[in-house]
Parts: sequence; C-alpha cells; structure tokens
Amino acid sequence: MNAFPEPGGGSLDGIRVVELGTSVAAPMATQILGDFGAEVIKVERVGRGDDSRQWAPPDWDGQSVTFLALNRNKRSLALDLKDPRGLAVLEELIRRSDVLVQNLRPGAVAALGLTPERIAELNPRLVYCELSGFGPTGPRAGQPAYDPLLQAYSGIVSITGEDEGEPARVPVSILDMGTGMWTALAVFEALRRRDRTGAGTHVELSLLQTALMWVSMPLLAVAAGNGLPARLGSGLAGVVPYGAFPTADGHVFVSAGNDDAWARLCSALDAEHLRSADGFATNRERVQHRADVTSALSAVTRDFTTAEVLKRLTENKVPCSPVHTLDQVLADEQVRAVGALTSVEHPEVPDFQVVNLPMTFAGAYPTAPTAPPVLGADSGAVLREIGLTPAQVAELADAGVVGLADTADPDPATPTGDAT
Amino acid sequence: MNAFPEPGGGSLDGIRVVELGTSVAAPMATQILGDFGAEVIKVERVGRGDDSRQWAPPDWDGQSVTFLALNRNKRSLALDLKDPRGLAVLEELIRRSDVLVQNLRPGAVAALGLTPERIAELNPRLVYCELSGFGPTGPRAGQPAYDPLLQAYSGIVSITGEDEGEPARVPVSILDMGTGMWTALAVFEALRRRDRTGAGTHVELSLLQTALMWVSMPLLAVAAGNGLPARLGSGLAGVVPYGAFPTADGHVFVSAGNDDAWARLCSALDAEHLRSADGFATNRERVQHRADVTSALSAVTRDFTTAEVLKRLTENKVPCSPVHTLDQVLADEQVRAVGALTSVEHPEVPDFQVVNLPMTFAGAYPTAPTAPPVLGADSGAVLREIGLTPAQVAELADAGVVGLADTADPDPATPTGDAT
Repeated sequence: MNAFPEPGGGSLDGIRVVELGTSVAAPMATQILGDFGAEVIKVERVGRGDDSRQWAPPDWDGQSVTFLALNRNKRSLALDLKDPRGLAVLEELIRRSDVLVQNLRPGAVAALGLTPERIAELNPRLVYCELSGFGPTGPRAGQPAYDPLLQAYSGIVSITGEDEGEPARVPVSILDMGTGMWTALAVFEALRRRDRTGAGTHVELSLLQTALMWVSMPLLAVAAGNGLPARLGSGLAGVVPYGAFPTADGHVFVSAGNDDAWARLCSALDAEHLRSADGFATNRERVQHRADVTSALSAVTRDFTTAEVLKRLTENKVPCSPVHTLDQVLADEQVRAVGALTSVEHPEVPDFQVVNLPMTFAGAYPTAPTAPPVLGADSGAVLREIGLTPAQVAELADAGVVGLADTADPDPATPTGDAT
Repeated sequence: MNAFPEPGGGSLDGIRVVELGTSVAAPMATQILGDFGAEVIKVERVGRGDDSRQWAPPDWDGQSVTFLALNRNKRSLALDLKDPRGLAVLEELIRRSDVLVQNLRPGAVAALGLTPERIAELNPRLVYCELSGFGPTGPRAGQPAYDPLLQAYSGIVSITGEDEGEPARVPVSILDMGTGMWTALAVFEALRRRDRTGAGTHVELSLLQTALMWVSMPLLAVAAGNGLPARLGSGLAGVVPYGAFPTADGHVFVSAGNDDAWARLCSALDAEHLRSADGFATNRERVQHRADVTSALSAVTRDFTTAEVLKRLTENKVPCSPVHTLDQVLADEQVRAVGALTSVEHPEVPDFQVVNLPMTFAGAYPTAPTAPPVLGADSGAVLREIGLTPAQVAELADAGVVGLADTADPDPATPTGDAT
C-alpha cells in the first residue's frame, strides 16, 4: 500500500523518561515521548497525585478529562519526595533513566537537593528538562505562572477578540501544550547530541518563550515599525470579507481572498447589488470599509441556513467552512476518516477515546495508546525494577513513603525489567 | 556555570533537508530543523518564490515580515519544476538528501511525477513529509485549506470570543505553526527509526489533525457527555473572577483561583463590600453569577490605573498580569532577560531580529541564525554541489529553468560541497 516499508515501533523504545510533572506542560511533553515508544514513569505525590486528577468537571465517568487527555502511555509511581527514603528512590530512578522532565514550582526540585549539579553528578548522560513560566533568568524568573496569565503577559490576549469588545484569551492551552511540544523536540535534539558525545544536558524552557514564538510574526511586525494590530474578531487584516458570518441557524466561515472570489460570493448568494456597491468593489476598498462590508454581507447570510450557504459557496468555488461546534466535530466524516480519535481500553471509562498524535508513518499512527494510570498503579513494579525487595516495598508503603494503587498487584511472582 | 558540558552545534549537522514549501507550515518545520543544524535547501518558483515573500504589509524595510519570520537558516534555490530539466535537478537533490518537506496543493507534487513510490525509488532512506489541510484520506482529502478555515472546521472558532458577540479566531497561526512543530518532531522520530533500520518513511500530517490535538481536552469533554463549552472571552469555566478587567488606561489580567485569593483581591482594591455581597462569597456562587461579578469588579478596576492595580494585587499575592500590547512586550524587561529576541545581520534590513527557538541547552540557544535568503541566492552553489558545471548552470539560468539572485556570485572560483 505504501511505498516505504511498514513502520516498526516508536524510535524511543528503550528510552526511560521520568516525569516530575503536574497539570499540562510536562505531562504533554512526556505523553508525546511515550507515544513514540519511551517508557514514561510519572512520579506523583502520594494520596493526591498530579493536580489535574482533581480538575473536574469536566469529567468522564468520574475521571478528570484533563488528566485523561494528557497521561496515556505512562506508568504511575506515587512517592513522597520530602521523605529521604522517597528522595533516594527518585535518585536511583534518575541514575537509571535517560530523560527527566519537571515543571514543579520554580526552585522546588532544587530545594529537594536536586540541583542541576547534583543531577549531573547522579547521571551525566541525563537529558534534564526544566520547564517554568517566565524562564531561568530575569526579574520574574522565580514567579509561578499559568497559561492564561502568560497569554496576557505576552500580548496574545491584547490581539484576541473584537476591537469594540473586551480582549479575549485563546481558549486552548497553546502555551502549556506548546511548551510540551517544544520539550519533546528538545529531548530528541538532546538525545541525538548524546548519541554523538555521550553527554547529557540541561534544557530550560518556559511558557513565556513559547508565547513569544507564537506571536513572532505580529511581534516582528511591530518591531519593524508597523502599527499595533487591531483585534479583528474572526477577521484578517488584509482581506475583507474573511471570517465568521451569521446564518439563520449558526455561522459560516468565508474567505474571499481576491476580487474574483468576491464576485463569485456575491453571485452565489444572489447579492449582486453588493458586488460593486460604493466602496465594495476592490479588496483595498473593502478593507477600508470593513464594518460596512461585514454588516451588509451578514444581512445577506442571515437569510440562509448554514447548509444552504455552504452549498452555494462550494458550488461557486468560494473557500468556506462550517463553524463547527465540538459535537459536530466529533461526528464529522472527515474527522472520522483521518482516524484522529482512537478508542483505548480503560478500566473505569468504558467509551474512552484519545486524540492521536497528528501524524502517520507509512500510513500508521505512532504506537497504540494505553490508558492513563491509576495513581500509584506501577509503584510496586517500578521499585522492584530498581532493586527493592517486596519486603522493602511493603515497608515504604506502610510508612506512607510510597503509594500503592488499590488495583495494583501487591506482590507479583515475577519482577520484570532490570531488577538486580 | 552549568553542570552539564557546553553544548556543541545542533544535532542535525550533516542532515540535508529539501523544502518544497510555501506560506507557513512547511517553512516553520524546516526553520526548526535548520535551527538544530540541518542544511535546508528551500526550492522556490523562479521569479516569485514562496507566496509569503509577497505578504506585505506588514513589511520590514520592504521585506515581508511573514517571510522574514519563517525562513532563517536556509538556502534558496529558484527552480522551474514544470521544466524537465528543473525536475531532474530536484530529483538529484532528493537522491542526495535526508528529508523532504512539502506543503504544496494536495496532489501537486505527485502530478510532477513525484509520487511516494517514485520518491522511495529515488531515495529509500528519505524521510518524506507531506503536509495537507484535511489529511490524506476522507471526503475532503484533496481540498486546499487555510489556518483560519480549519480553525472554524475544527471547533476552535466556536469557542473563541465572547458568548454575546460573534465567534472569533485565534489570531496566531496555531495550526500552520503547530503543524510545522509536529513535522519537526516527526522528522526526528523518523531519523531515529532510520538510524536503526536504514529505511526512510512517508510521514503525513495535516492542519486538521493538528487542530484536533489543540482541542483534545474540550473535545474529549464533549465526547464524555459534558455540554458544549461556552465562549467566555478571557474567562475560565470553573473560576470567577479570572480574566482581563478594564482599568483607567488599559486592562489587567486577574486570577482569583480560590476564596482566599478573592478576599485578598477585594481587600487590595478597597472593595471589601464585594467580598461577601449576595452571591459573591464562594467561587461556586461567583461562577453562577459570572456576569454580575465581572461587572461589579470591572467597575472597581476602572477607577485605578493598570500600574496601580498590578502594584496592589502583587503586594497582596493575587496572581495577575498586565495585558501587554506587543510594543510593551518588546520593551519588557523579562522578555529581554530571557534573550528570546536575537539580532541577525540582514543585507537589506539593518535592525533585523528573530525570535529564538524557545529553549536553551546548558544555557545556550540552538545555533546562531543567519538571515532569510534572497530568492535564488544559492541556486548556483547548490547546482554545482550536485555536479553541474558553471556552463550548465548558466545554460539553465538563460533558459529560465533556474533563477539566480542578482546578489549571487554567478561564477565563483571554488565550488564547495560534494560536487563531482
């Protein structure tokens, strides 16, 4: 079927990643690495685990949707790092791993004694990724930060929404998830460098730097002396009409990128009177009369159903799209066809699905996902793999240093992995 | 200074990437690869080049800002692929390269004869990345698509903006740039697989799949049976107050994540009367009275300057941020401190700067950037590297099959690279 050979497993098979993460950014990073075949050990607080386990609603059969969306292909180790015995376990894991990704409060990991120096001493081959809000230096280096606040700080909020209304935010976590993606890229880069030199490294990333990359085009435009961009709602600065227009039963997104498309648009909607109306004839004029064009065209589109507008525009080769709501997205034929959503077996969520990584290799998505783990699901197994006896595991569990999941087999007959 | 050794060059040193790209997604992908040390050869149309070269305003000393922001660390080869001699040059480049990234119209590259089968035949070790709007299968597979239209199609527009107003779009190219980031990740993954197996692969990515990953959390929430999310402007579903509030001279972004923070917020702004006002006392109540709380708090913040609100909230440990405009972002001390913006020498843009990749390795950003190339700047050099004589280059240039930049040395004495 495909010209290139069938893909094997992910290339990170054999790479062990320790996540000391919470919320979105670090979990996103390690989920990507897990999708490419890495073994990901998620170290969580005993009792509560990752903050995002509590972020419900929205929930899915009682589980936090945020946690479910960001933690497939991982093992969970519940560990009290404030106890020296817990810290010793983490240090042993660091010695035996290839990658450490953490996004705890700035300074929190170093306060445990795990400074970059100590980490390099434990494992000079380690790729140590440290994620923060504002970056490693500067007056705000130590401050915690959240995706929406950094959207405001970095100028994204100032350009989102309608100019006449209040500024808005981007309602998906482009800073947290984006930083997770940059972290995964940094890990691949650092592993390739290590292949060559044998040495690990310390990678630092931040929501602020991720944000500046997102706004790089408008930011450089302002640096070049262009004026501040207006908030244009769904519109574009240089093309009118372009954006979401109301219909009798929803909205359609229309793009008339040149005067020919504008002519076809007017004709398709029986609105020939608009085509050469005063100030409407050329794109340059329409940009100057943005509000008038938008209001006149909206008056036309409001008389049709969404389906009718889409049919007429498509027939007339005017680029357009439904403004789908998320339930429509789930039901959409094209979304189904690309196979982006995959069912995953989950013990407590019968209909569980995840969104695949957005890429295929010779037609196949990266490795098949496993369900996000119950807190502490793999505590016992991981401890035995790093050399603890079942008795030692039980002792740590009794002392509350390690959390074992109710569902975990407390004493399996056959330890696996590199237990010594 | 850093516990890990000084970083050397990027890990993709020695990897040759051919970009058959236009606009944003493919150029973003290969710019990332170039930042990590790959040699990127950008193949462009003779005469016009990448569409984005014409996307001005905004411009920087006459150059398109979009082009400038997405094409550092690249060489430009202007080539007419409709001419068999031009196609033969591209095929020879494919034979000698490691990666090909293309985002031309669906089917356009195959129409040149470069089907995946032919590409695999030319170079079975090649990582061939094909980017599209809607993905490789399904009823819309062949349709062109643009970032804003796909934001509408994938539900992003439906959740952006104010509920009382029209839906908005995300004003940065999260689908195009995001697909570029996923492509760079896919290339690293495929190169690691090739290190193991010797075989290249065909990677397919799309704006649609990238979009579904961005909305994965709200999408899974709807799949789980939670209702459709409202458009909340700058707000958050589960926390009130949270978002941008007006001041006497701008906006501030405020987050009162719990009732203690709410108490501190009211006290900081001398608004004790709000704290326990009817329906305002607990977060649960405030979520139910979102509009009332927002309007009451806005009336308070409007009486202060932005600086005064930030000072009072910071002193009272209420998480907050200025809603920076982009000129303020450029001037911001923290932005300067993390060194995200770097000056790059450009022959026609004296003050040119770029936004660095958002990560450092042992304290250093990836390789230093070089300026985006003039159209055809490297045509002669690249052709000689793949074995053409200066006479053959001149002949192709005379025939219009190859475009040489005015600034390029037409016949340098010493060919470089792997010329045979």
